[in-house]
Order: sequence, then C-alpha cells, then structure tokens
Amino acid sequence: MSVGVLGTVALDHVKTPSGIKKDMLGGSAAHFAMSARLFTDVHMVAVVGKDFPCKHLDFLKRKGIDLSSLKISSGKTFRWRGEYKKGDLNTAVTLATELGVLQTYVPELQKQQQNLSNIFLANFDPDLQLQLFKYLKSPRLIGLDSMNLWITHKRKSLRRLMKMVHLFVANDGEARALSGENNLIKAAKCLRTMGPRMIVIKKGEHGALFYSDQVMFSFPAYPVDKVVDPTGAGDTFAGGLMGYLSKANKLDDKTLRKALLYASTVASFNVEGFGMGRTASLTMREVEERMKGFVRFFALT
Amino acid sequence: MSVGVLGTVALDHVKTPSGIKKDMLGGSAAHFAMSARLFTDVHMVAVVGKDFPCKHLDFLKRKGIDLSSLKISSGKTFRWRGEYKKGDLNTAVTLATELGVLQTYVPELQKQQQNLSNIFLANFDPDLQLQLFKYLKSPRLIGLDSMNLWITHKRKSLRRLMKMVHLFVANDGEARALSGENNLIKAAKCLRTMGPRMIVIKKGEHGALFYSDQVMFSFPAYPVDKVVDPTGAGDTFAGGLMGYLSKANKLDDKTLRKALLYASTVASFNVEGFGMGRTASLTMREVEERMKGFVRFFALT
Repeated sequence: MSVGVLGTVALDHVKTPSGIKKDMLGGSAAHFAMSARLFTDVHMVAVVGKDFPCKHLDFLKRKGIDLSSLKISSGKTFRWRGEYKKGDLNTAVTLATELGVLQTYVPELQKQQQNLSNIFLANFDPDLQLQLFKYLKSPRLIGLDSMNLWITHKRKSLRRLMKMVHLFVANDGEARALSGENNLIKAAKCLRTMGPRMIVIKKGEHGALFYSDQVMFSFPAYPVDKVVDPTGAGDTFAGGLMGYLSKANKLDDKTLRKALLYASTVASFNVEGFGMGRTASLTMREVEERMKGFVRFFALT
Repeated sequence: MSVGVLGTVALDHVKTPSGIKKDMLGGSAAHFAMSARLFTDVHMVAVVGKDFPCKHLDFLKRKGIDLSSLKISSGKTFRWRGEYKKGDLNTAVTLATELGVLQTYVPELQKQQQNLSNIFLANFDPDLQLQLFKYLKSPRLIGLDSMNLWITHKRKSLRRLMKMVHLFVANDGEARALSGENNLIKAAKCLRTMGPRMIVIKKGEHGALFYSDQVMFSFPAYPVDKVVDPTGAGDTFAGGLMGYLSKANKLDDKTLRKALLYASTVASFNVEGFGMGRTASLTMREVEERMKGFVRFFALT
C-alpha cells in the first residue's frame, strides 16, 4: 500500500565541516519522500511558495512522488539555514528560519487521496498535523514525528495528537524532553502511556530502539565514518520505516524488525552526501547490498 | 585458561539517586575479578593497606580469587568517593580520592603466576602497568584499560604501553580523547594504528563496538531501566570479555562476538545494585538466562 506524508518542503542552506551548500531541496516531507519512494508510492502533502524552483518540482515528479496535495501559494518557500560543527555532527545549530508560506498554510488532502491508510505526520506544527485527520477516511497506520520546539511550546496539542496516532518516532533528546525520563527504556515506556502503541527512539550513531507492549528491540546504526551532512537523516529513517511498513501491510514482530533495519540503512546513505545528494540516486539494489553487510555487523556468529 | 588482573582495590563511598553506600569493596581489579570469576580462575595483582577489612579479603577468597599477588602494605587502602547525579547516571563525579598505599606501590607477580598468558591491565597508572611486563614469560592476550586522567597526564607512557598490548578497551569519551576523533568508527581505526590489534569501545547504555583489521561489529546494551549504581560497570564488562576469551582460548570472530555479549550481560547486572551487591551473588545460570533474552533483543526475526 502507498503512504502519505505531511511535512515541510524547504530550501536549505547548510554548513558542515565538509562544506557549504545553498538552496538545496530539503524539508521533512521531502527527505521522507525521497526515502519512502524506494519502497512504495508516496503522496506528499505540503506547501511551497511561488519562488520554488521548477527544477525541484520536476525532480520530485521524476522520482515518482505524487504532488497532487502539494500547494503552491503566493509568498516565499520555507527556508532553513543551519550548521553542524566539527566534533558534534549530531546536533544542528539553526542559524535562521524564514517561515514564508508556512505561516498561512492549512493542510488539505485531495479527494482521491483520502483513502490513504498509511500516513506520516513529519515534523510540523502539531496544530496543523491535527488538521489532516478530518480528511482521513480509513487510517490504518499513522506515524508521528515532532521536535523540541513543539514539545516546549505546543505540548498540549502534541499530547492530544499522540492519542490519535499509532507510531511515534523521536530522537533520544526529544524522547527525554517529552517523557522527562533520562533512561531511554523508561522514556519509551512513558511515551507509550501517552497513546501511540509503537515507539521508535532514534539514537543517531548509536542506532534505534523499538518499544511496544508486545516487543522491545534495538539495533546499532550502520557504521558510517564519513558523515558529510546529517540534515534529513531522521526523516529519511522515518521514510524507510513507514515506506517498508506500508508496502508490507503487516505489523508483526518480524516485519517491524525488518522495517527498522531498512530505516537505518537508508538513513546511513543520507548522511554521506549533502541534502538529498546521495538518497536521490539511491536504488533498492544498493540498499539491499548495504543491508547484507549491516546484518553481519551485529550478527551473533 | 586463567586470567590475571592488575588494578586497584578500593574502599568506595558512592552516592547515586538510589542512595548512599560507604566503605564498599570497589576498585578496577576487584570489579574485574568479580565478573571474570564466572568464567575462569582469576589472579589479582593489587595492593591494599593494613586497614583493609578482613571481611573483604575473606569475601574475595570465598569467591575463588587467587590473592597470592595482593600485597598488604603499611598505610591506608585507596579510597574513592563519587557521585552520580539524577539524569546523568553515565558520568561519575569524583568528589575525593585518597591514594594511600597506591602512592608507593610497585606491582609484583608471584613466581608461580609468571606463566599467566592472559592478563588484563585494568585502569591504573600506565607507568605501573608497564612494570608488570618484566614478570610475564608467555603473554598470549594482554588487555588494557585506561582513563582520561592518564590520557591527559601520562599520554607518553600510555602510548608506549599500547604498542605492547593486544586488546584495548575504552569508553566512548576516552576513545574520543585519545584519538582526537569524534566519530567512534574513526576513533577505533585510529586507536588500532596506535598498536592494539583489537579495539573495544564501550558506549554505556548504547552498547559496545569491536574493531580489528579483520572484523568490526557492534551490539546494543542489554536494556536496563533500573540503574542503581554504575560504579565498576566498565571493569565488570572487561572481566566478562577477558574472562570468556581466556576460558575459550581462541580469538576467532565467533568467540569475540560471544565474549562481547557475555561482557555486556554481566555489566548489565552490575548496574542493578550498589558496588558488587549484584555481581557478588551472580551465577552463570543467571547470566545464561539473561543472555537468551538479550539475544532476542537485537535478533533479526
């Protein structure tokens, strides 16, 4: 089955120890889509401004992403400018954001997409994430991502939203901030009580943890020693996770473990290039090939 | 085969969010021994003062640890006082150290122990660690641990030592400090070039990474959500690692992976009690039982 994603489409200006790149296609929905497309059909729900380069639109279409619910509004595309400093490539320092068309955007889902049963609410204002529910006729699997900004300033909306979703994805810092628990196992258990029956905690270079009432498991991250730009790694991870789960159309233990492996594998490619430099050209063959080595990395024998 | 350990035997005063304990048996050699004894015979090379309680000596003997090379010197036993604060149980804050008999100690190995082929140089002054080599007639596997104090103040001796050992064990912070690399894969590769052909990086709640020219692998940590006192977890880990490798008397891929699993499993017990409260009564049956669940934790299917 296909998957829909609500999130941002941005123009990113990123500085990392490997260099500087301007006006790159970015945003949570775009990174998610570039990953999930490897597994299934992707429908993007987002907004850009009139200044959004045609080449980016063409690129997304060429990658097979359905843009029926991508709105082109008067105004400027959302811009993010950030930096990763040498020695701490896990932490993005936001230097500037220009919200542009995000300020007035209200998500809408085209009629033909309202039967989508797999939806990911990528990092976005929780009040806008809530808006999408009125369009969803038969949700089966709704995933949610958020960030510290919303955990701090829109906790009430976020907590309301958490009662409505099935899968919550957070990085370690977000999981700690939202749960108030430092120990990540305790944090996962606490997030579970907030609503979502599946919790995934991303730990960057340390891998990821899955928690549900039935099962808990964890894998290390695929070992990457050449991190160029981590922007979008979390969204790429989520794209692999939701993309594979949507394709498999199952949520049993084995499927969940495989989904987490795919998620980590695709994310490991993302960090090797600026923006979507690496994931845009990525093929399933490359993913499967890397996954073979990845599985050996934490095999018992 | 049996294993020897050079390190400290201490009286610990520890405060954690779970409480305060005074005059506990501690130190790198003691924690190592309490773990390694589960796998093989352990010979302890260390020093205590005349004030060292007889009950601790009796206890170590009862646990089957060979104390022939434990020197009882005039003066006071080494004391460590530390605290772990709520929210960061990974970091020990040292409040006080009283070196006592450590100030004048020179390690010596009894004649009947000089054929020991497996030796672990637990955290200790590198100049004293170097002293032990003159007694070793047929070393097969020498493991080394250190800490930031020596990395900063005795780097030259430590670097000399690294050329003489086979296995280097470090936590993530130490690996970064010594290599100057933030990325742990790069750090492991760099440490390899300093001499030891096997590198193990302990990542606390995130598990551990093994690196050699032939193989690299990583496991997550056993999920513990009730950390009482992490003191000695690293030494307990090293005890499981060296204890199993000494017993197995092999260093192939499969044996190394199993050794890392045992190391993590025994360490997971250590943190559940104050000092050796949990590891002192631990049996191999409990270790094997927990390891079964641990293996499921990162199984693929």
